[in-house]
Amino acid sequence: MNYPSKLIEDAVNAFASLPSIGRKTALRLVLHLIKEQPEKVENFANALTRMRQNIRFCTECGNVSDAAICAICSSPRRDRRTICVVEGIKDVMAIENTQQYMGLYHVLGGVIAPIEGIGPDMLNIEPLLERARKEETTEIIMAISPTIEGETTIFYLAKQLEKLDVQVSTLARGISFGGELEYADEVTLGRSIASRRLYES
Amino acid sequence: MNYPSKLIEDAVNAFASLPSIGRKTALRLVLHLIKEQPEKVENFANALTRMRQNIRFCTECGNVSDAAICAICSSPRRDRRTICVVEGIKDVMAIENTQQYMGLYHVLGGVIAPIEGIGPDMLNIEPLLERARKEETTEIIMAISPTIEGETTIFYLAKQLEKLDVQVSTLARGISFGGELEYADEVTLGRSIASRRLYES
Repeated sequence: MNYPSKLIEDAVNAFASLPSIGRKTALRLVLHLIKEQPEKVENFANALTRMRQNIRFCTECGNVSDAAICAICSSPRRDRRTICVVEGIKDVMAIENTQQYMGLYHVLGGVIAPIEGIGPDMLNIEPLLERARKEETTEIIMAISPTIEGETTIFYLAKQLEKLDVQVSTLARGISFGGELEYADEVTLGRSIASRRLYES
Repeated sequence: MNYPSKLIEDAVNAFASLPSIGRKTALRLVLHLIKEQPEKVENFANALTRMRQNIRFCTECGNVSDAAICAICSSPRRDRRTICVVEGIKDVMAIENTQQYMGLYHVLGGVIAPIEGIGPDMLNIEPLLERARKEETTEIIMAISPTIEGETTIFYLAKQLEKLDVQVSTLARGISFGGELEYADEVTLGRSIASRRLYES
């Protein structure tokens, strides 16, 4: 593609460097910005740089935060005995949106993936063990994706937490609400029969 | 959605204000930028603001340009007798990429669309008529989408150009290269039979 302007080419390259944005979409976004007021484009750009420069990670749980300690860790209304271990920030947001959980979080920053060269020492694991030791923690919930890497991570963490006086739990597995039985994979379906529950009306 | 940080919320809102980017995609982009170096995010933002602040529109043809007169209009290698009239900047880029056209362009900035309140006076039409009058123009090619609005615009322009000594042409219509006949719409198929050409091997 030949661009009529170096400025446009640079802006297209900038957008195209983002995940899931190809050069065609990037060009469409740039041509949209050309039509916007310069101030609006500046505000857009400022929101991003301000975010990146000022964003902090909670020193307690590793979640993103506007302050040194995040709003969840510093809230007096959260149950400090339960820590929900998640892979990333998105998971915290997803669980918070359910409004079903009132405990604390711990963001690992990924899962153990030997093939990709990600070992336990590259994740936010040691601080979790410290929290489990020091704090009034009674339960640690593993809210980690049921992939091979996720299961490995859960296994590793459970091993590390074995010696401590905390209960380790995982999310319930089963058929999704609203999901059709025939579309459920065999493993999920098999396990959800094995761990069937008494019907409560 | 509750965001763990006002900074993130602002950045998500910024991305989500762009066309075809929803809040989920916006969040994914923001979480990607969090992982990038602050300098990289700053470069990204600067490419956009620099583009918007410095981009100019060619005073001749209305195409985007880094200078007062665009690279095409100022090139001595272009055929100044032919002007290709297009709706927008994207069309100039698309035609340039074919490397089949060596004339000049004229960017209308849209098409006449009475329903959306876009009349001829809101488009870059008067300067086109002036170019057609003043310059050594012999042919004006209407490279405008064959929509109702596009056809209306072509009709309007042709009427305006009638009194002048210029040839008005439109793009060839027909079956796309590589297109399957059975998927072509009736109008296109019908017209492409009517305007069939002698086979040249």
